[in-house]
Amino acid sequence: MRHPTVVIAPNSFKGSVSATGAAAAISKGLKRVWPEAELRICPMADGGEGTLDAVLSRGGRRGIRRVEGASGAALDAAFGLIEDDATAVIEIAKIVGLTDATGTAAPVERRSTRGLGELMRQLLDAGVRTFMVGLGGSSTNDAGAGFLSALGLKLLDAKGQEVEPTPAGFASLAHIDASALDLRLAETRITIMSDVNNPLCGERGATAIFGPQKGVERDDVAKIDAALARFAKLAECAVRRSAKDRAGAGAAGGLGFALQLLGGEMRSGADVVAELLGLDAALEGADWLITGEGRTDRQTLLGKAPLVAARHAAAKAVPVTLISGSIDREALPELAEHFTSCHSLTFGPTTIEDCLAKADALLADSAEQLARLFQARVTD
Amino acid sequence: MRHPTVVIAPNSFKGSVSATGAAAAISKGLKRVWPEAELRICPMADGGEGTLDAVLSRGGRRGIRRVEGASGAALDAAFGLIEDDATAVIEIAKIVGLTDATGTAAPVERRSTRGLGELMRQLLDAGVRTFMVGLGGSSTNDAGAGFLSALGLKLLDAKGQEVEPTPAGFASLAHIDASALDLRLAETRITIMSDVNNPLCGERGATAIFGPQKGVERDDVAKIDAALARFAKLAECAVRRSAKDRAGAGAAGGLGFALQLLGGEMRSGADVVAELLGLDAALEGADWLITGEGRTDRQTLLGKAPLVAARHAAAKAVPVTLISGSIDREALPELAEHFTSCHSLTFGPTTIEDCLAKADALLADSAEQLARLFQARVTD
Repeated sequence: MRHPTVVIAPNSFKGSVSATGAAAAISKGLKRVWPEAELRICPMADGGEGTLDAVLSRGGRRGIRRVEGASGAALDAAFGLIEDDATAVIEIAKIVGLTDATGTAAPVERRSTRGLGELMRQLLDAGVRTFMVGLGGSSTNDAGAGFLSALGLKLLDAKGQEVEPTPAGFASLAHIDASALDLRLAETRITIMSDVNNPLCGERGATAIFGPQKGVERDDVAKIDAALARFAKLAECAVRRSAKDRAGAGAAGGLGFALQLLGGEMRSGADVVAELLGLDAALEGADWLITGEGRTDRQTLLGKAPLVAARHAAAKAVPVTLISGSIDREALPELAEHFTSCHSLTFGPTTIEDCLAKADALLADSAEQLARLFQARVTD
Repeated sequence: MRHPTVVIAPNSFKGSVSATGAAAAISKGLKRVWPEAELRICPMADGGEGTLDAVLSRGGRRGIRRVEGASGAALDAAFGLIEDDATAVIEIAKIVGLTDATGTAAPVERRSTRGLGELMRQLLDAGVRTFMVGLGGSSTNDAGAGFLSALGLKLLDAKGQEVEPTPAGFASLAHIDASALDLRLAETRITIMSDVNNPLCGERGATAIFGPQKGVERDDVAKIDAALARFAKLAECAVRRSAKDRAGAGAAGGLGFALQLLGGEMRSGADVVAELLGLDAALEGADWLITGEGRTDRQTLLGKAPLVAARHAAAKAVPVTLISGSIDREALPELAEHFTSCHSLTFGPTTIEDCLAKADALLADSAEQLARLFQARVTD
């Protein structure tokens, strides 16, 4: 194996390096061992933060549009255009992100996904008819009402006056009118990238499960959940499609519901990214796949990017090595069903802070050492 | 590679597992991957602590003799007998160990290696004529005067009275009489196991370099160094052999001098252990060698057990993997000249205490993951 072909497909390492950065660091380590190796770079993502960067690493272009943030203040939202501008890639964390201090200024009951609808409308104007929307990391819990409202859905009270498309407004909601919904949506294809399977409402719903981390008080869960159910039922009637009980309707505070109401198709975010980046083609004739992430535990097995990368590799009988910032050893037996080997990037006892600060160098050194072991094949 | 042959030759992991324990843990991990692998166990040591256990792991028997400890109190010293009781293996740390609180009760100027001489005399009585003496971890700095004295060397003052064979006694030393030295020493072969190259005296000597860690005050270094030089010169005259300037004379507070004065041959401790355990034979036809130690840095390159194991493996073109508690990443480029790959047993950020407490389990899991990667060969 003088010049092996290695596919490098890490997820981002949260708090330290992006997927692209991680791939670069791993490449650096491998090149020390195999200066002429063929390294095929496929930075991964799962639909959440980092998805846009990962997808754009293979081409396309980045755009910016000014839209409304979750709490009403304007923000410049980045998105991607790929496939000759025919397909838009949207990461909702860039519009209603949970880590955006301005966006989370309003209480969660009044935050809105209107900005996503505004962005989609502008892109429809620009001729885009295919959307890949990555859910994950949202601060909103409006069942996507703001999003649908920006696209023409009318939420009305008993007197026929428009009400605010937020859980706070749902209290006076009496009727929903879909007649002004953007007609172009009928010829639009929406792919929803998410690994969340929860329905919109109930004890496994958006409010009960994800609400508290967005600021929903425990005592308000039932009330807000009921408000979302009320909106959803009326919206389903208006659009003549059911979506609230579908798997993933509860993703991103109910954006999963709204997007499915418009005919959107739920798919594993990592699978979509793998497809967009041509992971299967990259694995053709490859000797090894290296993936990675910041923290590996049983959650990884629920379809996170490294697992998806491993599944694609397994289909082509390519061995898969995982390099992680930290691995829950308890999960090793289950991880072993998917990964050829799992390793930490640490070289001894150290702090999390040190790991985060030196992730680049640690990744390069780890990849180098593992490649050296992998290369022991050459002595055969 | 359905049933690979793996040589497992770790050093002890200081503060956690012995070399034998480490080998067992690594074996456990490998067996999860290859239940029917041929595992050849060669626990390593470098002449210091753990040498006796490592050597006896391959047979022989353990004996105990009551002798004088470094500060005069009696202690039961363990030693080994191998090769049908013809060869004794002695670890001086078991007689004058730096970690023995009773042995270090007296100030360093009065500590004595007499116990080693007593043990050797008893073993000579038992018919032993071949000695392997592992230096390292001593609390003494007597140039081996106590040891020689127990074997018959007489240290006399100007009036012909015997003086104490310690640096404190050397002040009144006027003459040394070797006429009563045990005659059986002439037919005795002594192998000294040590990696120390320092001479007995001077700025690279035993007192200057190793004295302070044993309790020699900085201000007393010159005085004690001169006392050792005085003793050594008289002893060399009496025995008619020079030894004080030889490499390793400064090992174990000058026991390296005394043992060489008796014709002892200095050898790399790890090399001797490798030889006694038949490492070369174990490497015959092996697919892989795994070694390890608690902490790996540039010191490892100065001839520590893992390096010696790696050299033996290189001679047979067997790939070598090092699993260490902690690796100094700065040393990786140099380590790469000797080890196929170097890995830590950690699975993420953690404390030293946690590593020490779980070393067994961490070693097993690490070895398992590395074996899984190594096994990727099978897909060829």
